Amino acid sequence: MSGHVLALSGGVGGAKLAAGLAAVLSPEDLTIAVNTGDDFEHLGLTICPDIDSVTYAMAGLNDTERGWGVAGETWQAMAMLRALGEEDWFNLGDRDLGMHLARSWRLRAGETLSQVTTRLTQGLGIAHAIVPMSDDPVRTQVVTADGILDFQHYFVREQCRPVARAIRFDGVPGARPSRPLAAALARPDLAAVIVCPSNPYLSVDPILAVDGVREALRNRSVPLVVVSPLVGGKALKGPLGKLLAELGAEANNLAIARHYSGLADHLIIDEADAGDAEGLRALGLSVTITGTVMCEANDRERLARVALAAARIELEDHGAR
Amino acid sequence: MSGHVLALSGGVGGAKLAAGLAAVLSPEDLTIAVNTGDDFEHLGLTICPDIDSVTYAMAGLNDTERGWGVAGETWQAMAMLRALGEEDWFNLGDRDLGMHLARSWRLRAGETLSQVTTRLTQGLGIAHAIVPMSDDPVRTQVVTADGILDFQHYFVREQCRPVARAIRFDGVPGARPSRPLAAALARPDLAAVIVCPSNPYLSVDPILAVDGVREALRNRSVPLVVVSPLVGGKALKGPLGKLLAELGAEANNLAIARHYSGLADHLIIDEADAGDAEGLRALGLSVTITGTVMCEANDRERLARVALAAARIELEDHGAR
Repeated sequence: MSGHVLALSGGVGGAKLAAGLAAVLSPEDLTIAVNTGDDFEHLGLTICPDIDSVTYAMAGLNDTERGWGVAGETWQAMAMLRALGEEDWFNLGDRDLGMHLARSWRLRAGETLSQVTTRLTQGLGIAHAIVPMSDDPVRTQVVTADGILDFQHYFVREQCRPVARAIRFDGVPGARPSRPLAAALARPDLAAVIVCPSNPYLSVDPILAVDGVREALRNRSVPLVVVSPLVGGKALKGPLGKLLAELGAEANNLAIARHYSGLADHLIIDEADAGDAEGLRALGLSVTITGTVMCEANDRERLARVALAAARIELEDHGAR
Repeated sequence: MSGHVLALSGGVGGAKLAAGLAAVLSPEDLTIAVNTGDDFEHLGLTICPDIDSVTYAMAGLNDTERGWGVAGETWQAMAMLRALGEEDWFNLGDRDLGMHLARSWRLRAGETLSQVTTRLTQGLGIAHAIVPMSDDPVRTQVVTADGILDFQHYFVREQCRPVARAIRFDGVPGARPSRPLAAALARPDLAAVIVCPSNPYLSVDPILAVDGVREALRNRSVPLVVVSPLVGGKALKGPLGKLLAELGAEANNLAIARHYSGLADHLIIDEADAGDAEGLRALGLSVTITGTVMCEANDRERLARVALAAARIELEDHGAR
């Protein structure tokens, strides 16, 4: 390998590419920095949805049918909580709960989120570094006509019903990059930055908003490759599509390119969006058109190789891991 | 009904009689005060085994085959905790975990254990008052040749292997009775105290050790009926038998009568221990000999009626509830 790769990831979509990168890069060659803006406190637990999505995908525990959470999940604790009259708007699976419990009590005992994440991912046999963007709390909030809502309250509890006016990240400025993210950004052998196919506004922006991260990426001397989360302009549909439409965010790759203006060198877009390529090139970006839908491990690895090639990372023939 | 009944209970055995009393007494006529000496903190959760046993028995959720915990229990969270490398010596069921979670976060939010217990038992549809002996932490500890061990550490983690030298209750003196226990003790219409068939040394002594409880019971003017936990001198066998034998506690009703000397008026003993009756009467106690094994709801109700009759409580013909 020709250097270290830093990947930035949100939840499910990003997690798949992160797992693909881990399949082709050795642990010492990859740092996966994960959005913690979606984290929240619920029933005394600290829940980190994106770290968990990446962790479950990397450990092969993710539920591929449901698309989120742990495979083979059950909901017995939730049924008891409901019977006890506790809030049940956030569905806590039993296996997932083991993760939340372990994290929460370790945090309460004084470990940082970085330390806890290292401990728990290693516990599951993950050799690659999954690191939170920050050990300081950053909380994505939606400014709505009904007031400011924490992201999970807006997204899960209110099902995105309130009209959105803005997205804000509570805790920035002031949130420092986690030690392992700061270390990855400062590595003399840093060779590339890959932005995984995660929502730019909700999953990647919080990472960029952490103190010094955007500046460090602007001043980098290595390729920054963005894998678009769009497939036929569709990823912004669904409940999040409503939010982003209300904020005037467009669901096309030109909007994404403008969003990452000054940061991205290269955009990887889906074949369904091939028509965007010319406009992207006119903005000064290089472009790769490929299939970006990752159904199976093969798809994840292939897209990881495409992203690394776009970043001019040479993989040894025998791969890694 | 001719007044209010205060029942003192430990875990499983006591819980059965508590459920029987609740079946024949209306909610306003019964307070069930429960041992909290077995409570402990584990993985950030506050676990109250005896309150839970009484709650599950009263709500009809108890697992009658296994003899403890919730019926239909599963262990998925535990499997995840184990995979994550967390301590797994205390087996946390998924449904049980819902209870621990609800309690723990309410306590952390500032509610007292009494308030939380009222909230959660009412949530499960229990109309009768299940109250902790104290809102202040009392922790049963076993002084062993290997040092002082918290009760659950001794009992579950160490499987009672260390040689016991003494039992102590950390937190007393200084632990005040919970408000509802103090209120029950002070009721002008208090008509009887029933000590449920729980271990005198491990489950009832902590209740008596709470500030002022033993004195209040000594100074009472109403009958105090003890339902013996022994059946053929056998209840002190098993792992706890080892502990109690090491402390010189004898497994017979005369030892139990001496233990409650100055408190008990009446002892209810099992038919298998009928031979103890003469000695008990010689100690000045009145005695009822009956079947005390409670397999089904019928058994629990029948024993409850026997205990109330021994306490000279007259039940209206139509019963209650």
